[in-house]
Amino acid sequence: MGKYLVLQTDFGRQDGAVSAMYGVAYGVSDEITVADLTHGITPFNIFEGSFRLAQTVKYWPKGTVFVSVIDPGVGSKRLSLLAKLKTGQYVVTPDNGTLTHLALEYGIEAVRVIDETVNRLPGSEKSATFHGRDIYAYNGARLAAGLMTFEAVGRELNPADIVTLPTHLPEIIDGKLTGNIDITDVNFGSLWSNIPEHIWTEEFKAQLGDWFEVRIYHQAELQYSNKIQYVKTFSDVHPGESLIYIDSVYTVGFAIRIGNFATANHVTAGPDWSVEIKRV
Amino acid sequence: MGKYLVLQTDFGRQDGAVSAMYGVAYGVSDEITVADLTHGITPFNIFEGSFRLAQTVKYWPKGTVFVSVIDPGVGSKRLSLLAKLKTGQYVVTPDNGTLTHLALEYGIEAVRVIDETVNRLPGSEKSATFHGRDIYAYNGARLAAGLMTFEAVGRELNPADIVTLPTHLPEIIDGKLTGNIDITDVNFGSLWSNIPEHIWTEEFKAQLGDWFEVRIYHQAELQYSNKIQYVKTFSDVHPGESLIYIDSVYTVGFAIRIGNFATANHVTAGPDWSVEIKRV
Amino acid sequence: MGKYLVLQTDFGRQDGAVSAMYGVAYGVSDEITVADLTHGITPFNIFEGSFRLAQTVKYWPKGTVFVSVIDPGVGSKRLSLLAKLKTGQYVVTPDNGTLTHLALEYGIEAVRVIDETVNRLPGSEKSATFHGRDIYAYNGARLAAGLMTFEAVGRELNPADIVTLPTHLPEIIDGKLTGNIDITDVNFGSLWSNIPEHIWTEEFKAQLGDWFEVRIYHQAELQYSNKIQYVKTFSDVHPGESLIYIDSVYTVGFAIRIGNFATANHVTAGPDWSVEIKRV
Repeated sequence: MGKYLVLQTDFGRQDGAVSAMYGVAYGVSDEITVADLTHGITPFNIFEGSFRLAQTVKYWPKGTVFVSVIDPGVGSKRLSLLAKLKTGQYVVTPDNGTLTHLALEYGIEAVRVIDETVNRLPGSEKSATFHGRDIYAYNGARLAAGLMTFEAVGRELNPADIVTLPTHLPEIIDGKLTGNIDITDVNFGSLWSNIPEHIWTEEFKAQLGDWFEVRIYHQAELQYSNKIQYVKTFSDVHPGESLIYIDSVYTVGFAIRIGNFATANHVTAGPDWSVEIKRV
Repeated sequence: MGKYLVLQTDFGRQDGAVSAMYGVAYGVSDEITVADLTHGITPFNIFEGSFRLAQTVKYWPKGTVFVSVIDPGVGSKRLSLLAKLKTGQYVVTPDNGTLTHLALEYGIEAVRVIDETVNRLPGSEKSATFHGRDIYAYNGARLAAGLMTFEAVGRELNPADIVTLPTHLPEIIDGKLTGNIDITDVNFGSLWSNIPEHIWTEEFKAQLGDWFEVRIYHQAELQYSNKIQYVKTFSDVHPGESLIYIDSVYTVGFAIRIGNFATANHVTAGPDWSVEIKRV
Repeated sequence: MGKYLVLQTDFGRQDGAVSAMYGVAYGVSDEITVADLTHGITPFNIFEGSFRLAQTVKYWPKGTVFVSVIDPGVGSKRLSLLAKLKTGQYVVTPDNGTLTHLALEYGIEAVRVIDETVNRLPGSEKSATFHGRDIYAYNGARLAAGLMTFEAVGRELNPADIVTLPTHLPEIIDGKLTGNIDITDVNFGSLWSNIPEHIWTEEFKAQLGDWFEVRIYHQAELQYSNKIQYVKTFSDVHPGESLIYIDSVYTVGFAIRIGNFATANHVTAGPDWSVEIKRV
């Protein structure tokens, strides 16, 4: 069975930092394959990193180890965690909210706190700012390679005690469906909400062809309001037209065919962006 | 022999989508190696994707499977193809023109239409917008790993019946050589035409040191006109000077040494950009 | 033991060029693993490439072969080198200064000049502009795979005779510590000097909590002047505050917590940027 280590950071790829993480991992074991989730997370944006993990982790084999380093608190007393997901993958990450979406959507089976005094790249004791290389990639590789057990990484932590970010969960009140706009699919500018397909079709009773009034808010301020049709896919509307559709993470999305919904409407995504949907 | 799966998309790498494709592929088989052509294709730009395949495919071993997803028609009735090239590599891609340059320059030996009802990631039946993950990466990985034969993917299609984009082929008329400006080498801004070296030297009789008048058009409109010398390589002219040279895909290129021909002259590349070359 | 080939260029990843290098390497041998240092080096910026190698190489296993192609002189008479580092890794690169930081910080054990007439991708004899693919990736892969010995690549060159870039080495004069600002960690905008930790703490006697006057110059012109405290890590100051710290390459760095020192202060890095530090 393949042994995979998958890295996510906000470092970008113009720097040598990610390659140093690869080198450390391959130095631990030549039996693992290292790959990337993304290194294009907006610097310091933990929410975005949390979403990207949930978008991606389940498509990798059980046993895959993810290392996610968006770490504005590096060097502080924040803990370093190793989480085992109910779906069988692992995540190594600072305890700062990166596990928010995974905890909600996948479930976390168990968490260990990495004992950084013993479990770190030999010789890195003085490094105070690059735990991605010295602690996370190193321990992730050891776990992926089977050179360290889950239990050996450090003391147990109750999964309920990890740091999570506040989220605006979807709900239906007085016939209005509300939820959060979690993310854009960067290159295309579609907005993906956190409203799952089953709430949309089973509870809100949306049917293909129905029209809805969609309002998008930044905090309490209305940024966008329009009527949009719910269709199956992009080619069901004309180029330049907007659509509601079920996106590739199986939530309600908003897009423009051969266009960019986010830039065209001056809206974007994140914990401050919400949507309200009403039948026309 | 290595088993390689190489991915090209217009998704960018800030998103989790490409990593999900990697995960699906490694979930199919741990005997394959997954790598990237590029994920920086301009969104929806099929012509660019078509060129990048022709630029790259032949440098990979026979048997390598390429997955190319620039797919503005996702969810429509456009077909999904598996093409076998005369050079021995394979390409999985929507039937929208992505194979244009390969058909011209490599030749396509055989084409199959992917039967998406059976050949797709188990559980992805409801996905209407991410065929790159659910159909293309999945089937590409199965083919690369030897878990599915070329024939088993679906019914045969005559290679002459695939969608191709119109192209302005090079020709010499009244001593003027014309062709298309296919692409830039992004970071450096050199323009690469579709005029192959043998037409340039054998039919047009260009010789190192000769001077030419070069006119570049966007559609019918003249955008650039100047005299440029044909030299072997960048260091044959001074920094800041223009040159005609044989580029790394062995066609006629236009560049500025330690400069950017495209931005300096407000020109770029694509099916609407052509060049006309006359001896001085 | 793993056989690794690691690529660095200024080509970017929007182009097909890097993937062609991967293909050539895997065509040489399916026993190697190819990975990236970065392809985001500023075009033609040899100094930046030189730094990135020194930042990264030591984290990869002994025997790893690096290919670094920032090559404004491609096609000229500049030599192509294969260097063996005292730390056990190899670097294939044009002889244009890319080895500057490695020569200073790692030491070069031996150098060979690649004989390009015999050691090149078969069929590439006419290529004058893409040595990264036809010579560097090809020979790097052969060396990494054990298909060519170090000695077989070409004649020996005295390591003292390779091209190196001028550097402003750190020194203490009249209580002022000066050095070069070598690089930024791109996404975060921290400045990393070439002043190593041991000069900072042992010779300059800096202690955690001390305050310093920091002046940053572009050539002879003062660009920045301020008092900054030396602390262990980002979280020792408030968000928005500046700090001096030991960065992840173990030199003296300048940063703003949850901010971007470079853009906030209109300064950047490179051979023309220097720093002068005085006790307050």
